Amino acid sequence: MNFADRLFEAVREKGSVVVVGLDPRPELLPPSLSPAPDAGAEAVAKAFLAFNEAVIEAVAPYAVAVKPQVAFYEKLGPAGMETFARTCRAAAERGLLVIGDVKRGDIGSTAEAYADAWFGGPYACDAITLNPYLGADSLRPFVSRCEEGYGCFVLVRTSNPGAADLQDVRDARGRPLYLRTAEMLASLGGDCVGECGYSAVGAVVGATWPEQLAELRAA
Amino acid sequence: MNFADRLFEAVREKGSVVVVGLDPRPELLPPSLSPAPDAGAEAVAKAFLAFNEAVIEAVAPYAVAVKPQVAFYEKLGPAGMETFARTCRAAAERGLLVIGDVKRGDIGSTAEAYADAWFGGPYACDAITLNPYLGADSLRPFVSRCEEGYGCFVLVRTSNPGAADLQDVRDARGRPLYLRTAEMLASLGGDCVGECGYSAVGAVVGATWPEQLAELRAA
Repeated sequence: MNFADRLFEAVREKGSVVVVGLDPRPELLPPSLSPAPDAGAEAVAKAFLAFNEAVIEAVAPYAVAVKPQVAFYEKLGPAGMETFARTCRAAAERGLLVIGDVKRGDIGSTAEAYADAWFGGPYACDAITLNPYLGADSLRPFVSRCEEGYGCFVLVRTSNPGAADLQDVRDARGRPLYLRTAEMLASLGGDCVGECGYSAVGAVVGATWPEQLAELRAA
Repeated sequence: MNFADRLFEAVREKGSVVVVGLDPRPELLPPSLSPAPDAGAEAVAKAFLAFNEAVIEAVAPYAVAVKPQVAFYEKLGPAGMETFARTCRAAAERGLLVIGDVKRGDIGSTAEAYADAWFGGPYACDAITLNPYLGADSLRPFVSRCEEGYGCFVLVRTSNPGAADLQDVRDARGRPLYLRTAEMLASLGGDCVGECGYSAVGAVVGATWPEQLAELRAA
């Protein structure tokens, strides 16, 4: 089923639009799971998994998806990636969609390898975040997988102060780059529209900038 | 020592500017290392490591660095990342610099976690590639590590056809976005200039576009 329809159905069934971030830090774990200060990566990765499983168990009735941020797992090396993989499986078993916040982006066969990693590969995400700087052909290897039910959320206008550096650069007609990115996605995602009317190719727009959000919704 | 100086010294000592890509694919391995068609990720990851170690051994006298593309390791899951980590160590033991082609990019504490992963963490790269779409503040957590001897290569003008989609968008003065990116890097990398005169913050410019390359060299 189309990813947008899967998400739409989950929202309707659960009466919720909650997505729960899973960005664990050792120092923020509850005391019962807290690893020793000198714990190695394996022990921290195990603590992350126990924490994520408990969160997934607690939020499963109320949330539609979890969104693990891969950087916090990558930092722990292969053991952290094992925890990421198991977190994806635990979420799926509890009926939660998994949006992998990986912000990948590369060209040709490299993009295909990334898509293989995150869509139905070792890390079973339902959707991932992507970076558009390399252009439409760098996104196609991911977008082409939408027909298998996967989804893509592509950075358009991010929430950080530095987002303006490139994303707000205006062309000769006064239009900011993020609108160009949004148009590129609208074109790329046109074939991925589900029965719900939304596309499996979504845009990441930081709600810290309400004016840009309204502008992008209108575009 | 500053990364630019480390690279400059390696180039001078070896009389070489060769960087060897390590982008292994199972179907392209030599027959003696080729995994069985039904081999699991662990077996393929082991074959990748044996291949990389042989390449590193062969090129160490002639190359200054290796550049593994992480997507091909990520695709194999945690076992692939273990091979990536060991490849970094094998290259370092043979005196080769490691440029991790990871094209990461994220904000704040997430960027710091990525920097911890790739600089002196489980994956011991000397330099990595980065994506600039999120702006200068997303690059600073990486650039700030240059004082420890690490390097950053940031995408400016890539070699793929779709690069033009965003990177060539021209502002009101007719200047393409990639020049804006280059200026941002020149400013960010200004404090990271080594004794050789180059900065530890470099630009990725595809040599398939000689005109843009000349323009960026002049800028």
